[in-house]
Formats: sequence, C-alpha cells, structure tokens
Amino acid sequence: MGRKVFYISDGTAITAEVFGHAVLSQFPIEFEQTTIPFVETTAKAEDVKKQLNDCFITTGERPLVFHSIVNPEIRSIIYSSEGLDYDFLNTFVAPLEQQLGIKSDPKTHRTHSIDNASYNDRIDAIHFAMDNDDGISMKNLDQADVILVGVSRCGKTPSSLYLSMQFGVKAANYPFIAEDMDELKLPTELMKHKHKLFGLTIDPMRLHEIRNQRLAGSTYASLRQCRMEVKEVEMLFKKQRIPFLNTTFHSVEEIATKILSETKLERKMF
Amino acid sequence: MGRKVFYISDGTAITAEVFGHAVLSQFPIEFEQTTIPFVETTAKAEDVKKQLNDCFITTGERPLVFHSIVNPEIRSIIYSSEGLDYDFLNTFVAPLEQQLGIKSDPKTHRTHSIDNASYNDRIDAIHFAMDNDDGISMKNLDQADVILVGVSRCGKTPSSLYLSMQFGVKAANYPFIAEDMDELKLPTELMKHKHKLFGLTIDPMRLHEIRNQRLAGSTYASLRQCRMEVKEVEMLFKKQRIPFLNTTFHSVEEIATKILSETKLERKMF
Repeated sequence: MGRKVFYISDGTAITAEVFGHAVLSQFPIEFEQTTIPFVETTAKAEDVKKQLNDCFITTGERPLVFHSIVNPEIRSIIYSSEGLDYDFLNTFVAPLEQQLGIKSDPKTHRTHSIDNASYNDRIDAIHFAMDNDDGISMKNLDQADVILVGVSRCGKTPSSLYLSMQFGVKAANYPFIAEDMDELKLPTELMKHKHKLFGLTIDPMRLHEIRNQRLAGSTYASLRQCRMEVKEVEMLFKKQRIPFLNTTFHSVEEIATKILSETKLERKMF
Repeated sequence: MGRKVFYISDGTAITAEVFGHAVLSQFPIEFEQTTIPFVETTAKAEDVKKQLNDCFITTGERPLVFHSIVNPEIRSIIYSSEGLDYDFLNTFVAPLEQQLGIKSDPKTHRTHSIDNASYNDRIDAIHFAMDNDDGISMKNLDQADVILVGVSRCGKTPSSLYLSMQFGVKAANYPFIAEDMDELKLPTELMKHKHKLFGLTIDPMRLHEIRNQRLAGSTYASLRQCRMEVKEVEMLFKKQRIPFLNTTFHSVEEIATKILSETKLERKMF
C-alpha cells in the first residue's frame, strides 16, 4: 500500500491534482491518491481535517496534502490537521507579490471558471471539433485553425478534441480510408486549405494492435493493410510537403503541443 | 502591456502553464504569456536563455519564468538567464525526498506520457464519448460510467468529452428535444440504466443566448421554447429523482468535477 496523498481544493481540485501528480511522478514509488474538491465551507473543512487525522491514526504516517485553497479560514483548518501541507499557491504568491509590487487578490474559482472572455470561444472550438470530426463535414474548413489528416485510428480524434478543450484551437480532422489508397490524393476541399493541413502517422504494428482491439481479424486491422495505408499516406505527406508527426510513442498532450509548436498556432489558456 | 511571463519545459509545458496560470490568476493584473515546450537540448536551452535576456533588455524588467525542466543541465542554462525562476517542481521535490526517505528519480515526459497502463483506457473513453454523443447510439449504455441528460446546448457534450479526456470516465449523453416535450418521459433504453443518469440544466435566458448564436431567430432559440424545455426537463428530473446540476455559471471543469463528486465515480489521473 502506497503513501496516502490528498488533493484538496475549494474549487475543482484539478490544479492541485496536476501539480501534485507532476511532483510525485518524480518519485519511483506508488501513492494512494484521494481528491477532495469543493471544500467551500468551514464545516466541510472540519470533515476533511478529521479524515486527514484519521488517516494518520490508521496508517501511522502523516498523509501528504497538495492543496490550492484560496479562502484563508478554510486553509487554516486544513493546515491545523495532521496532514503535511504542500501549498504550491502560497509558496509562490508571497515572492511574486514582492516582485510585482502588488498585493494578490485571491478569489476562489478564478482558475477554472466561466468568468473568462474566451470561455465561449473554447466551447465553440469543442463543438467545432465534434462537428468536423472524421471528415463528417467539409463545409466549415475555412473556420478551422488546423486540419489533421491521416489513416483511421492514428490519433486524429483525441488530438483534435484535446486541441479544442485545452487550447481553444479549432481543429477539424479527415481520415484517408482504404478505398482511397489505390490512387491516394488530397480531396479538392483539403487542397483549398492545404496550408492548414497537419499529418499524423503511426507505426503499422501499433496501428494493427489498435485496430485489432476494435475489429479483430478484419482486413481493416490486418498488419498488411496497416502497412500499406501508412506507406501510402506518408508518401502523400512527403509529396505534398505536409508537415507530419509520428504518434506511436506520444500521448495526446504531446501530440497536441507538438502540433501547436510546429504550426505556430497560439495556445489560449483557460 | 503586461509583465512578460514564460512557461518553459522539456516536455509539453502543460503542467508549467497550469501551475503558473493558477498562481498568476491570484493577481488582478494582465500578463503577457509565452509558452516554450520541448526544450530538450542544450542548444535549444541557449536559444531560450537568449530570448529571456533579450526580453529583459527590451522591457527593462526581468521576465517571470515558470518551468518544469527535469534535465539538470538544461535547467541550469535557464537558471543562468535574466529570467526570475519559479521552479515549482524542485521547490517541492527536496522536502518530499526528506519526508519519503527516498531520492527522486526524475524522468522527462513522465507526467504526460503514453507510459501509463491506463492510457489506452483514456483513449477508449474519448472514443466512447464521441460514439455515444447526443444520443447517436443507445447500444453501448451498459459500458457507460455515467449518462448525461438534458436539453440541447445545456453543456452535455463538452462535459462528456472533458470527463473522458481528463478523468478517463466513459460518459454518454442524450438530448431531450422539442418533439419529446408534449409528453416528456425517459426512453426505455435510459430507464434500463436509470442509476447512471445525471441531469444538466441551465438558465433559460442563457440557453436562449447560446442557441441564438447558433440559429438566430429560430423557434429552437426562442426564449419561450427555452423556458418550456427547461421547465419540462427539470420536472422530469425531479419526478424521476435524477440528480441534476445547473450549468449556467459553471465551466466544463467545474461541471465535470461536480458530476464525479455527486456520483462518487473515481477520477483517474494521466
């Protein structure tokens, strides 16, 4: 059983999780993680304090607490528990106040809130990615920031969605399918927006595994078919000078950020 | 023009952005933000150092640098620049090493990498959300962790996608449409999975605005129609004792985490 870790926040606790997870991933051991969001009242904070204290009594070890609690009263209750506090917000706020020469003005929910002029743009980008997934519609490509192209199941859909969700970027995607392969070329609609195209490719063996999970034993999933499709599509990318990325060893975060990096598209922040 | 801020990483820089953004959002001023991911070589680090130094010369103010650079050689180059370092990883790693009694074993790309047993589950969850969006398919509801229900454009789709992307939770969603309203009831397929249903609702005026952006002047977007649909659907939620949440003032992060909190579904971490 790993050391107990708590992510606690008066908001979503997503920032506390991302931060704590990044720090703990530097250690080659397992942790047992619990997230407690929306600790918005002193009553709830007292409950959490009790949970932390109980954890200490049960395990004999003080639980690690990563928190991003903005409200000082609630924070002091958590501080007074047996948990070991790793308070990433306040650790950095004081030196920044000094550097910037202004006082911080903490408000709960400022990080992940709707009070953000660009929030609607982000929701629009998500709906855009949905409506322009998998070549469903070719009508709105003039509104796209980027159009991902590649064979089926090479990572286009998750990458498009991540681009919209995390960065507010409007990403369409278009699949090259088996029927296109005899004489592979860019459809006219894509040619019109060629400067927006970004290719994804993948190791044929990995593609074979992924497709086999979906449709085991099919021609679609066969290694032979995967090899052929990947080869044809990579040739097209090179011939048309479409920048492309091999997704085999990359997570959706890595793919999305590499696309932004290559295309010089701006990251919006939410 | 706001103070210059750089988010720098030898990985995706997403963690540096999330962390820096959370800290800076405590200050009521504007910042001018630049993200530089994949600083993976000393040559690239030297370029970044020059960029930071140039920024200092041009603006007369030392840029704020939030970074999560794991490689010590690359980190020391960034440290030696005119940037002001806010190094959230190393600030917390040393005290944790002491507390845990073990040395950290830093590896780049550990946070957002594919080397994660649950990475495939997450991609599956994303495809699940896509394939089961907007009532497209009612066949796979037995595999769903949660089924979001509500009127069109109340936030179901972005919430389902966020649940899958961020937490690996399989979320389907189903819209109640105008034609259902005369005699609103749960379809048989949803009744079978009633314990998985979670309702979303929204202020009719806000819904009216959102729908008007999409189809201005339509019956669909009219305030009268929005009021009627919301009223009927909320009555159904109450009658059927379906837990529900008003999304009007909540971001997709807040909606998703509140759903997890209410349904006691486990958050996976990536």
